Amino acid sequence: MNKDSISRAVIKRLPRYYRYLGELMEDGIERISSNDLSQRMNVTASQIRQDLNNFGGFGQQGYGYNVEHLYQEIGRLLGVDKKHNMIIIGSGHLGQAIANYTNFERRGFVVTGMFDKNENLYGKEVRGIKILSMELLKDFIKKNDIEIAALTLPKTEAIKVAEELVSYGVKAIWNFAHVDLDLPREIVVENVHLSESLMMLSYNLTRQEDKKKGVM
Amino acid sequence: MNKDSISRAVIKRLPRYYRYLGELMEDGIERISSNDLSQRMNVTASQIRQDLNNFGGFGQQGYGYNVEHLYQEIGRLLGVDKKHNMIIIGSGHLGQAIANYTNFERRGFVVTGMFDKNENLYGKEVRGIKILSMELLKDFIKKNDIEIAALTLPKTEAIKVAEELVSYGVKAIWNFAHVDLDLPREIVVENVHLSESLMMLSYNLTRQEDKKKGVM
Repeated sequence: MNKDSISRAVIKRLPRYYRYLGELMEDGIERISSNDLSQRMNVTASQIRQDLNNFGGFGQQGYGYNVEHLYQEIGRLLGVDKKHNMIIIGSGHLGQAIANYTNFERRGFVVTGMFDKNENLYGKEVRGIKILSMELLKDFIKKNDIEIAALTLPKTEAIKVAEELVSYGVKAIWNFAHVDLDLPREIVVENVHLSESLMMLSYNLTRQEDKKKGVM
Repeated sequence: MNKDSISRAVIKRLPRYYRYLGELMEDGIERISSNDLSQRMNVTASQIRQDLNNFGGFGQQGYGYNVEHLYQEIGRLLGVDKKHNMIIIGSGHLGQAIANYTNFERRGFVVTGMFDKNENLYGKEVRGIKILSMELLKDFIKKNDIEIAALTLPKTEAIKVAEELVSYGVKAIWNFAHVDLDLPREIVVENVHLSESLMMLSYNLTRQEDKKKGVM
């Protein structure tokens, strides 16, 4: 099956399946029907079956899903069965928050270096990870097999730094800067635009207020 | 027109239009054709026309869009023409990062209070905003007309705290905890699940590696 043809909407739901299956495993549940899973996840059972059919099904008629098997298969699809070395560029509060998430490490995303252009931060450690000078970036990426870089720096710097990172061999950018990066097609870019998320919230809040006022 | 019938996909693109139009204004550009806008934004001109038609059009044949007018109209749709008081629950690195974003304030999202259960943080200020005890939450929300609460605390606490916030009158939750909140329908919930975003990145990274290996 060609995984390129699977819609982003389906793929976006995989991490949520993965989270629920992980919780079922923690609760000692070994198998689950699509109906039971759908109730827990608040989606329809047919949606679950359709989504998972994109990847070859995994379920058995009359038995349901083997929780651990499905968890592992989705984990493999998501690439969290492998270790990925990650660096963080921009070591302010947001960068430090990310470095502190031990959950990322549990899923294979290992932060091995942090960088900043503010020399007052050099030598400081976050969960044992040293903050280094941007001048060391190139060597560090080559020596430590870095695949992913989280960009937690102002948007004015993000474009230039992203291009540098790619030239040093980084394959994926987790972009928190509020700017669109224009990088070669084969480079993976995943954006976290917090202000856009906040505007979505505000859009929905405004619609709720309209409803109360009887405006549509 | 019934704004409830507009798809989430369209609405999700509005903040990006808003951002580009803001940049055009900064550059002193007063009007733009959908073709020029589409080239800048790397979407098709027909997508832009379709998206904006959902909200009544705004464009004029042969003239294009008046940048400032369109910026203001989209801003109004997004509810960023009004002031929204916000509090942050959980004053660790992530909470402090959010409190430090002056851009949110420029768009009308004013952080007026920060809270934490860690008493070592009480009295500390972030950009002039005091970190307060959770015991003061109820009074603070009622006295300061708080509409939005950002939840930057562990998932084990998020569900209970979210229910409390709603009972105190908060209308929207900006949820950074990696858990689904089950709140009354009229409460707006916008999730920022960082680990799901990182898994999307990892999914796409894995597909790129498959491509290189010739596996599909």
